[in-house]
Amino acid sequence: MTPASSKPFAVGIDLGGTKIAVGLCRGGHIEKKVVTPTPAKDGPDAIISAMIQAAREAMVGVDVDEIAGVGVGAAGQIDPKTGAVLYAPNLYWKNVPLAEKLKVGLLLPVRVVNDVRAATIAEFRYGSGKGLSDFVNVFVGTGIGSGFVLNGRLLEGVTNSAGEIGHICLDPDGPLCGCGQKGCLEAYSSGRGMERFVMTQLVQGVKSRINELVEGDPRKVTGKVIGTAAREGDELAQAALHRVGKYLGLALANVHTMVNPQRIALGGGVMALKEFIMPSLDKSLKKHILPVAVQDPLVVMASCENDAAVIGSAALFTEF
Amino acid sequence: MTPASSKPFAVGIDLGGTKIAVGLCRGGHIEKKVVTPTPAKDGPDAIISAMIQAAREAMVGVDVDEIAGVGVGAAGQIDPKTGAVLYAPNLYWKNVPLAEKLKVGLLLPVRVVNDVRAATIAEFRYGSGKGLSDFVNVFVGTGIGSGFVLNGRLLEGVTNSAGEIGHICLDPDGPLCGCGQKGCLEAYSSGRGMERFVMTQLVQGVKSRINELVEGDPRKVTGKVIGTAAREGDELAQAALHRVGKYLGLALANVHTMVNPQRIALGGGVMALKEFIMPSLDKSLKKHILPVAVQDPLVVMASCENDAAVIGSAALFTEF
Repeated sequence: MTPASSKPFAVGIDLGGTKIAVGLCRGGHIEKKVVTPTPAKDGPDAIISAMIQAAREAMVGVDVDEIAGVGVGAAGQIDPKTGAVLYAPNLYWKNVPLAEKLKVGLLLPVRVVNDVRAATIAEFRYGSGKGLSDFVNVFVGTGIGSGFVLNGRLLEGVTNSAGEIGHICLDPDGPLCGCGQKGCLEAYSSGRGMERFVMTQLVQGVKSRINELVEGDPRKVTGKVIGTAAREGDELAQAALHRVGKYLGLALANVHTMVNPQRIALGGGVMALKEFIMPSLDKSLKKHILPVAVQDPLVVMASCENDAAVIGSAALFTEF
Repeated sequence: MTPASSKPFAVGIDLGGTKIAVGLCRGGHIEKKVVTPTPAKDGPDAIISAMIQAAREAMVGVDVDEIAGVGVGAAGQIDPKTGAVLYAPNLYWKNVPLAEKLKVGLLLPVRVVNDVRAATIAEFRYGSGKGLSDFVNVFVGTGIGSGFVLNGRLLEGVTNSAGEIGHICLDPDGPLCGCGQKGCLEAYSSGRGMERFVMTQLVQGVKSRINELVEGDPRKVTGKVIGTAAREGDELAQAALHRVGKYLGLALANVHTMVNPQRIALGGGVMALKEFIMPSLDKSLKKHILPVAVQDPLVVMASCENDAAVIGSAALFTEF
């Protein structure tokens, strides 16, 4: 990681498939935020132009000498040395030299990390993992990713793929995952896994309020619809969220058994339904965890919320 | 860890349930070795006396000023700060202030670590993990333990329980483990898990050469007997070893997915039957591992063998 800089500001960019969020950051706070849609269909150069424009807007009124650099958190596989995006399916990108192009456009140092790593840095420096030496941050969204901070350092792994918790196998005979394997955590507990479970049940004729909410079309099932139905007391929706919690609890128990962190933070869109997820998660975690001294509370909610990737990618320059 | 010392020698002690092995070590080599039976039934003081006597014998002829300290690798739960053995079932120990008592008897600094951690240090400094920053050492014996070296540092975990790979759950509906949970790696792939599988099959009437080797008494099944039968082509014995490999491969895939090490070393008594275990292990590993760039060879045999805990506990003083 880059050593701490004496310059007070840094820019953090959360590059997502639908929007680009840019924050002018100072010590973990966003002083100014610019959000713009991602022109995903227009190709890499259009997206990079939109990023540059949004970043320039965020920096207006601040002396460029006060800005340490620009960090980007991108959903995809990153080459940490060059800052190239090797593969980002939601952007339709393959081998895009993102850092290089941004440097030319912004005339500032640029670093790129995976968005879950960026969020982990934010939680570790300013959020739920602040002050801890051993901390795991799990993001439960469309997919599931995580970042491990161990012995006070972010774990990258020898081929930069540490923390791929979504693809640990919890049952070799479990449901098929998008990665081609069976029984991955992601196949059970991600937004996509949860939706697929509900769709299958509906197709098999299980009665549910969800059927009405999607007007009889199982393809219209979303996490939002499942949440609405669960709040109305629908059994299938609640069973789907119970299943999310059950397998997340099992996976977190395995993480704890392997690396024994002090705390595990949960974030991401699916966790907005935590009221239905956490009881099953806690039960499953207690069932599967080793009865050695577990630090209390072990599992908490991530606290930087939607800004985590912005704050964390900026922190690549200012604090990490 | 203690900083490296300018004194060339250190003593390493492998404290096991049946024998105490003491080595006078210098830079990863054992210059003199003393082995004595563990008087396990005579209580902690008798065992500690035997350790002191064996250590003194190993040190004969060397100036005590040349010896940096005495490291102990013990099978059990250790308090890393005080060097007390909190719990060691194979020695019938609970809360034994081992470091303190050895210090009085040997007049040298003493450090105590778990024996698998000691072996991991040996492999990392001198063996299969030499020169690597991210390395996992797995011990497959009566039980299963492991040590993780990540970012160049041994991972202890916030409550000193990192690396308990034997108790990651691979199937929530799997066989009962000694820890009270279901489907732990240890329930499938440890010596004990393998023996239990064979016993159950024999009791259920499965025909096998093992039945003759144990004279019809399933309680007499040992790893050694299973190995003999497997070499004679016995199907049950080979199936038991195939099962060991299958679940080890799955567990190692999960380890790789989480922490992305460069290499994983396998040691311990059960791995003496590697010829029957590795084909299934490799197949299962390939099936469950994420298809990101895996360093080749990922899985190797541990190279310090039976001396690993002696060399590694000595290395607490000289090199780590």
